[in-house]
Amino acid sequence: MAVAERARDRVQQVRPAIIDTDVHNELEPLETIHPYLDEHWLRHLKDFGLRGYSGATYPRFLNRRADAKPPSGKPEGSDCSFTSRQLLDEWNVAYAILNPLTPGAAQLDPEFSAALCTAINDWQVAEWLEPEPRLRGSLNVAYEDGELAAREIDRLGDDRRFAHVLISIRTAEPLGRRKYWPMFDAAVRHHLPLAIHVGGAGGSPAGAAGFHSFYIEDHTGWPMAYQSQVISLIAEGVFERFPGLKVVLIEGGFAWIAPLMWRLDDVHRRLGGEIPDVRRAPSSYIREHFWVTTQPMEEPPRPAQFNRLLDQLAMNDRLMFATDYPHWDFDAPDASIPVRLEPALHRAIMGENAARLYGLNLAS
Amino acid sequence: MAVAERARDRVQQVRPAIIDTDVHNELEPLETIHPYLDEHWLRHLKDFGLRGYSGATYPRFLNRRADAKPPSGKPEGSDCSFTSRQLLDEWNVAYAILNPLTPGAAQLDPEFSAALCTAINDWQVAEWLEPEPRLRGSLNVAYEDGELAAREIDRLGDDRRFAHVLISIRTAEPLGRRKYWPMFDAAVRHHLPLAIHVGGAGGSPAGAAGFHSFYIEDHTGWPMAYQSQVISLIAEGVFERFPGLKVVLIEGGFAWIAPLMWRLDDVHRRLGGEIPDVRRAPSSYIREHFWVTTQPMEEPPRPAQFNRLLDQLAMNDRLMFATDYPHWDFDAPDASIPVRLEPALHRAIMGENAARLYGLNLAS
Repeated sequence: MAVAERARDRVQQVRPAIIDTDVHNELEPLETIHPYLDEHWLRHLKDFGLRGYSGATYPRFLNRRADAKPPSGKPEGSDCSFTSRQLLDEWNVAYAILNPLTPGAAQLDPEFSAALCTAINDWQVAEWLEPEPRLRGSLNVAYEDGELAAREIDRLGDDRRFAHVLISIRTAEPLGRRKYWPMFDAAVRHHLPLAIHVGGAGGSPAGAAGFHSFYIEDHTGWPMAYQSQVISLIAEGVFERFPGLKVVLIEGGFAWIAPLMWRLDDVHRRLGGEIPDVRRAPSSYIREHFWVTTQPMEEPPRPAQFNRLLDQLAMNDRLMFATDYPHWDFDAPDASIPVRLEPALHRAIMGENAARLYGLNLAS
Repeated sequence: MAVAERARDRVQQVRPAIIDTDVHNELEPLETIHPYLDEHWLRHLKDFGLRGYSGATYPRFLNRRADAKPPSGKPEGSDCSFTSRQLLDEWNVAYAILNPLTPGAAQLDPEFSAALCTAINDWQVAEWLEPEPRLRGSLNVAYEDGELAAREIDRLGDDRRFAHVLISIRTAEPLGRRKYWPMFDAAVRHHLPLAIHVGGAGGSPAGAAGFHSFYIEDHTGWPMAYQSQVISLIAEGVFERFPGLKVVLIEGGFAWIAPLMWRLDDVHRRLGGEIPDVRRAPSSYIREHFWVTTQPMEEPPRPAQFNRLLDQLAMNDRLMFATDYPHWDFDAPDASIPVRLEPALHRAIMGENAARLYGLNLAS
């Protein structure tokens, strides 16, 4: 639910404390990164600027809550102390996972991309993770080059203040393909989940039939990109190759998962011989390797249907609350779930599932 | 269910008579079309051959039931009298809708494409619709050119032996875009539904992240193409512009429809201002303008979940039985639905819904 306005009028502590698995620390203005780049790459950035893959989504899809402008005058979501106050204090958030969506991770120049990611990760440590112990960071990596991504994961992956490796859902190739495997290997090596957020570009249109006309199509179409990538990760045998790999799907909804499992299991039963590395029913990989976040979720018109959706999905231990702060479609913690859940399940979704995945201690 | 083998061992009349909304009359060998082409285009076909859009699906995705080879020695699905016997007689099929999937409909040379479609439609009349009154044809049209498609619909659209206009789900542009509007206009003018079948190519990969590796991904991914096109048709205001347009989604499943409706309605409530021509909740267009066929449908592991799926969808009057004869994943009429339905609903799906849409008389 879009509750930015209501949230503003409400000062309400959520009990017990929760974990917010999708918060954006905005790298704005871009010059913020300058002190973290070495001379060569700073020069490169100034001389050439950025050049990513074509086919990106709307530049303004990350618009912010009107009330998220910090008194410091900085852009919304770019001021750590204001995020602490407006999100963590106000809503009793024990931990929040930062997902900085930056242009660094998918530059066409691979080494430049890697250098930007290194700078972005150092910026997170210095300006977010050091000052605010309730925050956890995301490793930005040059994900279109598996080796370079692995190099960055090896550099910082043992710093427990980083919660996961972050990539975008729209990649240049289907995500199961081998060029991405060194990144998966490194993530597993450092016990870091791979988190996949809405966004990115890889040259292809979002749909199967060319570029569409409207933002609404872009926004409605994100689950298609997630379906495509889940299919690829399974079909390419990634989870047989990397049995420790955990994947978090952020902001893609989850009502599409059960129908996809049915379809995948059926076609696998009939044609599994094509992909002998895939030894089990595809749905079993999904239930074992995937986690999903709640914002935004598909909300059926009748509450009973939401409960059935959870029953279809059978992944109650994999749903993790998220606000998407400070983006325009922020979900307030007390209004994000359209039905009154049974208390144990509510606690699981609001924090315990994330605590288990990320090794966080909610009692503290 | 894949029941080709079981069907072979079974001689079983289904009562009451049914309507099969997806049967393939195969244009094989391609030379079959020669007598229906004029001299210029026959010369063109012989000199240049075919040249369609890139990015097509697997050429063998239409493989056939092993037992569908006619005694005449013709290719499976290409012999009208054998189709009559093996499908219509054996299963008490009152009517079957032929969906010839041919290379004619999406040639890059638009006039050549239109000429092939004209020949294909004349071939259907002469070799299928004249000899077998239980068959209904599909108008092949050069759908990448709305005007040429409309020209063919105007030529034959009042021949009631054609049930609908047939196109493929993967088009060069999202299907709601204006170049396709003259085709929609002509379909409505002649009271013909627009049927969209799995297949086609438009240059784009099927997923949002480039070309995948395996047939299983292709097969599992078809619902994404359907989602993309349904979004486009609604967002572009097609149903406000053509309130009489009826769309049949063939072979794309339907478990994805309810989640898509929830997501579309939600984003439309928030951002509908971008598309002011779309005056109603997107789900209301879906429930008013779309029909879906049963083969292949997503089959949840527990029968109760299938009933809930129907409840979510709330389109019981829009589901139409299909076998996909003679393709490898043929659904036998007595085994296509995974649960025992209440008799009135079973009759609706097996024939009455199609009878109403296509103006067919099941009692005859």
